[in-house]
Amino acid sequence: MQADIRIVEVGPRDGLQAEAVTLPASVRAALVDRLVAAGLRAIEVGSFVSERHVPQMAGTAEVLAAARRAPDARFIALVPNLRGVEAALAAGADEVAVFASASESFSRRNINCTVAESLARFAPIVARLDGRLPVRGYVSCAFGCPYEGDVALAAVVRLAERLVEMGCYEVSIADTIGVATPRQAREVAAAVAAAIGADRVALHFHDTRGQALANIHAGIEAGIRSFDASVAGLGGCPFAPGATGNVATEDVVYMLNGMGLSTGIDLPALIAAGAFVSGHLGKGTQSRVARAQAARSVA
Amino acid sequence: MQADIRIVEVGPRDGLQAEAVTLPASVRAALVDRLVAAGLRAIEVGSFVSERHVPQMAGTAEVLAAARRAPDARFIALVPNLRGVEAALAAGADEVAVFASASESFSRRNINCTVAESLARFAPIVARLDGRLPVRGYVSCAFGCPYEGDVALAAVVRLAERLVEMGCYEVSIADTIGVATPRQAREVAAAVAAAIGADRVALHFHDTRGQALANIHAGIEAGIRSFDASVAGLGGCPFAPGATGNVATEDVVYMLNGMGLSTGIDLPALIAAGAFVSGHLGKGTQSRVARAQAARSVA
Repeated sequence: MQADIRIVEVGPRDGLQAEAVTLPASVRAALVDRLVAAGLRAIEVGSFVSERHVPQMAGTAEVLAAARRAPDARFIALVPNLRGVEAALAAGADEVAVFASASESFSRRNINCTVAESLARFAPIVARLDGRLPVRGYVSCAFGCPYEGDVALAAVVRLAERLVEMGCYEVSIADTIGVATPRQAREVAAAVAAAIGADRVALHFHDTRGQALANIHAGIEAGIRSFDASVAGLGGCPFAPGATGNVATEDVVYMLNGMGLSTGIDLPALIAAGAFVSGHLGKGTQSRVARAQAARSVA
Repeated sequence: MQADIRIVEVGPRDGLQAEAVTLPASVRAALVDRLVAAGLRAIEVGSFVSERHVPQMAGTAEVLAAARRAPDARFIALVPNLRGVEAALAAGADEVAVFASASESFSRRNINCTVAESLARFAPIVARLDGRLPVRGYVSCAFGCPYEGDVALAAVVRLAERLVEMGCYEVSIADTIGVATPRQAREVAAAVAAAIGADRVALHFHDTRGQALANIHAGIEAGIRSFDASVAGLGGCPFAPGATGNVATEDVVYMLNGMGLSTGIDLPALIAAGAFVSGHLGKGTQSRVARAQAARSVA
């Protein structure tokens, strides 16, 4: 049975790469196992990037080797370049993700190239894959840039179109710094959907200012059916204690359940997966649903 | 100029009454001063309830005496009975708030009377006021009850109608335990608005499961223009560390600003008011916007 809403779990990659504590591959694989058991079917398990720059993602090949496969669960690996694709293929990833920024300043400062150059790097990735694995694209800073502030909607739409032309089956429009509010969420989602089709759009909200669920709600109203989320709200900023990062998958699932929209995810099992990884990180969960559940157990 | 959205600030009452630390009246008055300076024009400053049961609200008369008045700012006091009204009148409250529960079980356990009895207690309050002060009503547990679970929408609508008939200019429909999701928020808001008029409906969401902003967004779409919120997310449950209570006013204002909806509230001044009270409570703010702001200042 097809779920009403597709959740792409990004905690093991986008979440853990921003945590101050680096978890060994064995723990990350055990987290992936729990996420699969909870019903998640699209999981970003790691990335093949510079281990020097992102030590939290070292050993992603071991995560892919150790995590148990389920026939319908796809393990996604983020890759920045051709070398990353080779590693992803060798490690048995089911899908790769690529990224580009809607902001020139962010692109230059974060990945040290222009937006055009980042797209040019993407061409050999697609050529090397030659249709063997599906490719998912990210448009980062789509709702605002830490350096430029506002980002032109036209730039977001153009980049999403380019990523689809280059072979992405879906493009995740990301609020990297968590500044979006629902009206903008709906406007951006609608504009991108008009350009590439709503079935190719995913939305990726960071909950830095608590707006993520409201933005997802607005996105659903705009006809979007695919959302990224991070178990336990993994992520945040290591330099800002208490600052939250990705929206917590538990909170998204709770909202969707309440709205009668199916995800195929078992909420108690998901909460348990979040407790598992939070324990290993030695920090409290950022999921409010998980906290409310824990409080109820104590009271 | 009329604001697009009316915010009723409930932090000094609904928020502080649920905090583990009891603040002296002088600090509470200083908080109210800061909220007025930030542009809030409807502030629940305290309640005249049993000091034995709710020690956090002792000295509400002193708060009303000490807080600086602004000609267009209304100081609201919650009153449970005729004695409370006498105290509110003597202390110079601008408005009183009364409450009833949509759930019989909650009514019996929380205020030790049936819903009908709680309405009956309300009649002498209105008679005593005789139109001198506006009266605001609360329907608590309107979205779910900790004892009964689901609450009948018909019961919520009927209670809201009764409160208006008895003289309330506005009825705040409250998700006391923070279980609502956006579809329910819209359904309940629309049903109550159909019965008493959208301009008499306010919505009051606790953010226990992170759903409050999404619910407010849904409420706006249902035509509601009045929302309760609590600076710094004051409230929460003293028995559950980390569990959040009321939605943070800062996060609501950030969302509304982003949606182009005016509130008349100055966000930086509001964040400063939240930092002031959080400091006195010796705990971190629950506002994610305030946290993000603090993180940005450090980074």
